[in-house]
Amino acid sequence: MLQNKLWGGRFVGNTDPIMESFNASIAYDQRMWDADIRGSKAYVRALQKANLVTQHEMNQIHVGLDKIHGEWSSGKFQIKPGDEDIHTANERRLKELIGEAAGKLHTGRSRNDQVVTDMRLWLQDAIATLKGNTIDLINTMVERAAIEIDILFPGYTHMQRAQPIRWSHWILSHAVALSRDVEHVEEIRRRVSVLPLGSGAIAGNPFSIDRELLRKELDFNEISINSMDATGQRDFVAEFLFWGSMCLMHLSKMAEDLILYSTKEFSFVSLSDAYSTGSSLMPQKKNADSLELIRSKAGRVFGRCAGFLMTLKGLPSTYNKDLQEDKEAMFDTYDTLHAVLQVATGVMSTLKVNQKNMKAALSPDMLATDLAYYLVRKGMPFREAHSCSGKAVYHAESKGIPLSQLTVEDLHTFSPLFDSDVSSVWDYTSSVEQYSAQGGTARSSVASQIEHMRAWLKEHRG
Amino acid sequence: MLQNKLWGGRFVGNTDPIMESFNASIAYDQRMWDADIRGSKAYVRALQKANLVTQHEMNQIHVGLDKIHGEWSSGKFQIKPGDEDIHTANERRLKELIGEAAGKLHTGRSRNDQVVTDMRLWLQDAIATLKGNTIDLINTMVERAAIEIDILFPGYTHMQRAQPIRWSHWILSHAVALSRDVEHVEEIRRRVSVLPLGSGAIAGNPFSIDRELLRKELDFNEISINSMDATGQRDFVAEFLFWGSMCLMHLSKMAEDLILYSTKEFSFVSLSDAYSTGSSLMPQKKNADSLELIRSKAGRVFGRCAGFLMTLKGLPSTYNKDLQEDKEAMFDTYDTLHAVLQVATGVMSTLKVNQKNMKAALSPDMLATDLAYYLVRKGMPFREAHSCSGKAVYHAESKGIPLSQLTVEDLHTFSPLFDSDVSSVWDYTSSVEQYSAQGGTARSSVASQIEHMRAWLKEHRG
Amino acid sequence: MLQNKLWGGRFVGNTDPIMESFNASIAYDQRMWDADIRGSKAYVRALQKANLVTQHEMNQIHVGLDKIHGEWSSGKFQIKPGDEDIHTANERRLKELIGEAAGKLHTGRSRNDQVVTDMRLWLQDAIATLKGNTIDLINTMVERAAIEIDILFPGYTHMQRAQPIRWSHWILSHAVALSRDVEHVEEIRRRVSVLPLGSGAIAGNPFSIDRELLRKELDFNEISINSMDATGQRDFVAEFLFWGSMCLMHLSKMAEDLILYSTKEFSFVSLSDAYSTGSSLMPQKKNADSLELIRSKAGRVFGRCAGFLMTLKGLPSTYNKDLQEDKEAMFDTYDTLHAVLQVATGVMSTLKVNQKNMKAALSPDMLATDLAYYLVRKGMPFREAHSCSGKAVYHAESKGIPLSQLTVEDLHTFSPLFDSDVSSVWDYTSSVEQYSAQGGTARSSVASQIEHMRAWLKEHRG
Amino acid sequence: MLQNKLWGGRFVGNTDPIMESFNASIAYDQRMWDADIRGSKAYVRALQKANLVTQHEMNQIHVGLDKIHGEWSSGKFQIKPGDEDIHTANERRLKELIGEAAGKLHTGRSRNDQVVTDMRLWLQDAIATLKGNTIDLINTMVERAAIEIDILFPGYTHMQRAQPIRWSHWILSHAVALSRDVEHVEEIRRRVSVLPLGSGAIAGNPFSIDRELLRKELDFNEISINSMDATGQRDFVAEFLFWGSMCLMHLSKMAEDLILYSTKEFSFVSLSDAYSTGSSLMPQKKNADSLELIRSKAGRVFGRCAGFLMTLKGLPSTYNKDLQEDKEAMFDTYDTLHAVLQVATGVMSTLKVNQKNMKAALSPDMLATDLAYYLVRKGMPFREAHSCSGKAVYHAESKGIPLSQLTVEDLHTFSPLFDSDVSSVWDYTSSVEQYSAQGGTARSSVASQIEHMRAWLKEHRG
Repeated sequence: MLQNKLWGGRFVGNTDPIMESFNASIAYDQRMWDADIRGSKAYVRALQKANLVTQHEMNQIHVGLDKIHGEWSSGKFQIKPGDEDIHTANERRLKELIGEAAGKLHTGRSRNDQVVTDMRLWLQDAIATLKGNTIDLINTMVERAAIEIDILFPGYTHMQRAQPIRWSHWILSHAVALSRDVEHVEEIRRRVSVLPLGSGAIAGNPFSIDRELLRKELDFNEISINSMDATGQRDFVAEFLFWGSMCLMHLSKMAEDLILYSTKEFSFVSLSDAYSTGSSLMPQKKNADSLELIRSKAGRVFGRCAGFLMTLKGLPSTYNKDLQEDKEAMFDTYDTLHAVLQVATGVMSTLKVNQKNMKAALSPDMLATDLAYYLVRKGMPFREAHSCSGKAVYHAESKGIPLSQLTVEDLHTFSPLFDSDVSSVWDYTSSVEQYSAQGGTARSSVASQIEHMRAWLKEHRG
Repeated sequence: MLQNKLWGGRFVGNTDPIMESFNASIAYDQRMWDADIRGSKAYVRALQKANLVTQHEMNQIHVGLDKIHGEWSSGKFQIKPGDEDIHTANERRLKELIGEAAGKLHTGRSRNDQVVTDMRLWLQDAIATLKGNTIDLINTMVERAAIEIDILFPGYTHMQRAQPIRWSHWILSHAVALSRDVEHVEEIRRRVSVLPLGSGAIAGNPFSIDRELLRKELDFNEISINSMDATGQRDFVAEFLFWGSMCLMHLSKMAEDLILYSTKEFSFVSLSDAYSTGSSLMPQKKNADSLELIRSKAGRVFGRCAGFLMTLKGLPSTYNKDLQEDKEAMFDTYDTLHAVLQVATGVMSTLKVNQKNMKAALSPDMLATDLAYYLVRKGMPFREAHSCSGKAVYHAESKGIPLSQLTVEDLHTFSPLFDSDVSSVWDYTSSVEQYSAQGGTARSSVASQIEHMRAWLKEHRG
Repeated sequence: MLQNKLWGGRFVGNTDPIMESFNASIAYDQRMWDADIRGSKAYVRALQKANLVTQHEMNQIHVGLDKIHGEWSSGKFQIKPGDEDIHTANERRLKELIGEAAGKLHTGRSRNDQVVTDMRLWLQDAIATLKGNTIDLINTMVERAAIEIDILFPGYTHMQRAQPIRWSHWILSHAVALSRDVEHVEEIRRRVSVLPLGSGAIAGNPFSIDRELLRKELDFNEISINSMDATGQRDFVAEFLFWGSMCLMHLSKMAEDLILYSTKEFSFVSLSDAYSTGSSLMPQKKNADSLELIRSKAGRVFGRCAGFLMTLKGLPSTYNKDLQEDKEAMFDTYDTLHAVLQVATGVMSTLKVNQKNMKAALSPDMLATDLAYYLVRKGMPFREAHSCSGKAVYHAESKGIPLSQLTVEDLHTFSPLFDSDVSSVWDYTSSVEQYSAQGGTARSSVASQIEHMRAWLKEHRG
Repeated sequence: MLQNKLWGGRFVGNTDPIMESFNASIAYDQRMWDADIRGSKAYVRALQKANLVTQHEMNQIHVGLDKIHGEWSSGKFQIKPGDEDIHTANERRLKELIGEAAGKLHTGRSRNDQVVTDMRLWLQDAIATLKGNTIDLINTMVERAAIEIDILFPGYTHMQRAQPIRWSHWILSHAVALSRDVEHVEEIRRRVSVLPLGSGAIAGNPFSIDRELLRKELDFNEISINSMDATGQRDFVAEFLFWGSMCLMHLSKMAEDLILYSTKEFSFVSLSDAYSTGSSLMPQKKNADSLELIRSKAGRVFGRCAGFLMTLKGLPSTYNKDLQEDKEAMFDTYDTLHAVLQVATGVMSTLKVNQKNMKAALSPDMLATDLAYYLVRKGMPFREAHSCSGKAVYHAESKGIPLSQLTVEDLHTFSPLFDSDVSSVWDYTSSVEQYSAQGGTARSSVASQIEHMRAWLKEHRG
């Protein structure tokens, strides 16, 4: 069995079967078959330019690799014992198909620069997909915000009713966070798009390989600067895992809000049945499982990030086998985000808003700040006005009546500035319309947030 | 498709296929098929005692469940669309096999108490296996220590040569750490062995089910105290994940030492070829991949622990779908430990010790403390003796000679207490024999550590 | 400045001042002054027994150490430049007070075994305090549960109303979780109570020191088995940090429930003003800051655990300076838990329950499971009964009426088994009384949980 | 005591003293006194423009704030009971100094937008400092690399000797990683430089405050888009903590290499005494404490990151008190990095290289790849050449001679292509000179890396 191993020449012992499977990565790295073949096709082109293979050999190898590509894409590629990783599998198969010339493919290349090239190719595609998924979600949210701009409901801080706001203001607060995720992942993509191929195992490439040719063939932005760094660093993986954690942190926050809003007690929103499940015991239950799963995944992906960073911590430089932990973490993060973002888009596009309940939840005490502003507008320093309004709130609570039911006489005991025009305070629409400064909840301000986001989407799509 | 769902009665919409697979756990929880069947067999026995099923129905259900057991163990069980989890799959199949009576099995039970019962059953077995693996490893190490007790080599602190020690003392330092892991997991096992079945979804069981009968049938130590806690807590999973992290932390430390000792520069040990691999580029390389993988797994498993705790953090009480993250983390931790412990046992039993190199690495400066002790024994306070010895070290270094080559005259300049008997200091064997206090590196002390560990093994071997 | 350093003899260069403060731990480890003095007093007793100090010198050292103790406890101890850690500071001061004899104190001892002895002494006391704090909290909860046993309110799963339960059942669900924390920390305390003193730096103690005498003097349960393990492991710290994380995980869950219950929308509980704060902007706000802080601390302490484990990962064995990260993590975890547990006790003992709102929140749909059980009691298999009840729920929802308002005729369309006695289902008290199996929410079952916890408290107090 | 609280109007109860200190942040947030004053000065300017304060009041407030600034910078500011945070303290003091007008400062502002403005101001400065520290370190490394370009030593993969490389190539591999950290933190700085002031507590600012004026005054790049997001998100903190973790991950890797290289066994480098410490027990020890501390801090800072993310996970949107965990994590990360980067610069500029030992460690087996390349250059496919060379290595090992001592006859048994010119393979300098492709270890290639880094430094300094 050892004869299939790329490093088989020297070894005489046999490996322990548990060690064998402990060591092998083929079970998951086969997922990069396409990137591996693309990398090899480019590499042989560079070998040909360096006169290490002939035009004919290059063609042979290309034909063989294309055939292997076909086998993978049709699900017919057969993994054999000894195929410990995707590189070994593809090269073993190439040799079966074209014979000796296959043995030239690895000239001056090491699995150290090969695997990280494969990963960077794969991840660039993955990021493009996830960016698209995020943009779809943002788009859904922004268009929903445009439609529902006139719905008011309570804004909460500390989970306590704070001030009336527009529902669209809430939607946009989450859309804006996700737009940061898109910008963040674009930056990461730039750091992923750095070609390591041509770095060998550690010292570089000894055959004056044309790395600029490789870069162009494989459509990377840049070429790695130092061969030891190129083969031994996995910053791009760590950054991607952290990005996934941040993105899910945002979605966990949105999910938490919506789980709360979909409780019986809040009843602000109803999830579509498509994103809910029932109970095996309680027939009346309709659970927001989709949102709970989204919330939970922030932990999962951050665990991948934490685990991988712990694996990296304290490693000496260059390639160590510990780095093999990179791939499962990367794949799982991608798969999780890919599902979560689509489910979140589904949830946000099918969610039903219970406008009546939202309106009913607005209560006069939420205008206590407005009562203070009333006094501020009459010249009282805010700190004093805050105190007067606080006393009014306390007084109303003690009498068991809504704040808006205090008479002008009642209010006079707190400040002589109160007059009959105080009644204008108790209007929720007027209240929100005050917040017309940039970023506020006034209609005009929310509308301009929507315009901003539409322009942003146009710029970042594609 | 919805008709197969346990909670299908009320729903009219359809689920999104991505949501469907996002929600399903059958891909991994099928692994608990045996525990699920055992739990159901016990539960129906309790239902019969409570007169909720007849003797005949109980027999029918038992026969059906046994048949399902057979299908799973022969690999013939067929998962169908709609089988979102192992509980649904088994109950769906039971209905196919025995008809209506199957519908009685879930009486008063919820998936909330069912799933956590399955997990606790599964984990008790898993812990027993891992405990056995750890004990095998400890045993290998202790017996190796017994055989190699006379080999001396440098002990390191801060990765700098510190004092001569016995090689077996080093082996035992790791074995002792692993013995704490065994004791720790035994404690966890006690907390796993608490029966939740009979807690329903949240409020308890309404049919006066005999939980003591369930406990006996399923061989749990205790019965859970409160139904809300029983169904909503996953402490036992978190503790297990942390245990795995600690155990791997110990093994990562041992691996790090051995990776170091197997460098060309140290050359204290040689790994068996069975636990090494070569390079695809460099023919001379023999890499300690097994040890690097072991070292890396500490990160992986701790990531599972960190991720799961983050998922738990801030959850409200009782069952929330977020808890579904528990199973993959638990399985992966088990699988990782199961492989790592066996590979580590293989490594430790095949490792070759290069006694000559170990001896050659002992150098006189490692006896500087002994030089100070020489003075202490002649009455000098240690702090002063330490300073004298330090000056001697510096003097020898300046002269470019080994510490042991300083003449008595040289030494006299640092203290008049030095005399010709100082030559007795420069003997490595005498040096280690000083450390005869409990836990030290003298032969007698190491031998009694070995005896201690043998007795411990006898006690914990199960 | 170097002359004060314990290792000063050999060095000729000077340290960088940033390095100096980077390296020093005195800013935080001075907190262990008492443990350090206790350890030294015991050690000198053992030195005297080994004839390394005279009776007179021992007395001198004891008198000096007592004087230093007095200085620390009265806040008069002066830290001087060069006192890089508590050990150096105390020994430096001892020398100032008693002269040369002070230089004998460190004979055969290393800071490696000294610091870990200090930490284990300190932590045993800390654990005793935290255990007491936890028991006080549990006691408050259990007695509150006893008083409020007759209050019903909705039990939630997935944050959706599930089934009526007793408020005390909820309280106890959290008390039971905390009782596991107490049992867990008792186990950890046993692993903390292992004496490392007498292990030297790595090889052990060369003067046949009587470690059993040390153990008795310092009241440890056991003596460490292997000197390398004793000085190089910090498992007890890691376990303590994880314990703190688990305990806070429990409290974060309780806090989350209470934050939810104290929203305007739920209005089940009102926090005492003593544990709430207001808003600098909104006069009406009363925020549950205490609970939010408790919830947040689960992250903080787990961060300490994660950080410390990452620091440990991949370290070679024995003492490495990296271990210095142990102390701040340990202290911060203690301080956080110490405050959180007391605040939580304050919150739980002053919380006001709004019984009227709790009752009002019970709704007939929460009895859908009871409706199914009604059919089960008439012989219908549960799975079918669940489906019938589900249809009834859907029907009531479609008609916009409470489930309890469906007529017997309506119900007949779902099953002929429905009869006029179905009206008995709609009683919340009867509903909860069904759950009389162990751990359930029936009065008798909750009362026996209270008795169980009272007995448990009696056993674990003290 | 409550009268000093910003939200004091309404409360009648008293707070628990433990709760009081649990809640207060003044102990650490006072560190932002300068940012707080800058923010307030800008805010009052905007209030004046909006006619909410007069020109005279603005001047009064400015004079008062300048006085407070003076008190803080001279260490004379007195914190009083009730000063729960820096905002309260400064406003309380302002009122003492200028009376009623102080009460206008908080008009339309909330601590929610104030605190996050303070943090963003503080962090921008902090990042500038850390960027400078990192650039200093990189500069030191690059110039060192330029000087020592002709030193060869073994390159390692898997901690096993791999291929000869230039010492400067190793230095640059770490410098390049640090340059990514600089680019990364510049991106983060852009996301920090977004003005939240004018967002109020949640809904925005109701007085049409000119946020563009605020932005200019405080020199932010952009204005936050949505008030809820602005006050409730701490992405910039999380990103900074992660950045610190990544940067320390790089430094932990460099530290690990150097700790290894400074062992007796490697003896490639000697740390300056200024960055080493000794042992309290063993006079000969010289420990690389500085490097071990650097290595350890990767855990510490990542713990802060993990802890803060766990705190954030699952929080509902907008401000919750849990966010108070942001500041200690941010400060500790800054302090740690600030010290580590300077210590690392000190270490790298004083490190002594033991060129003789480096050279002696190069061994012929490290040229096994070159032996294969010899065959490749004669036309043999690499895979076959690798195998031949492997056999040669094995043969030499079996004979116990260096690879270079095999005769041409010996080599002929592995391939007829071997000829007398094979002797040219055994030259280390020729070997490294092969790697002249971009990023390789040839002199020209390393020199161009140095040029690249110098240009990069010029661009990023300032």
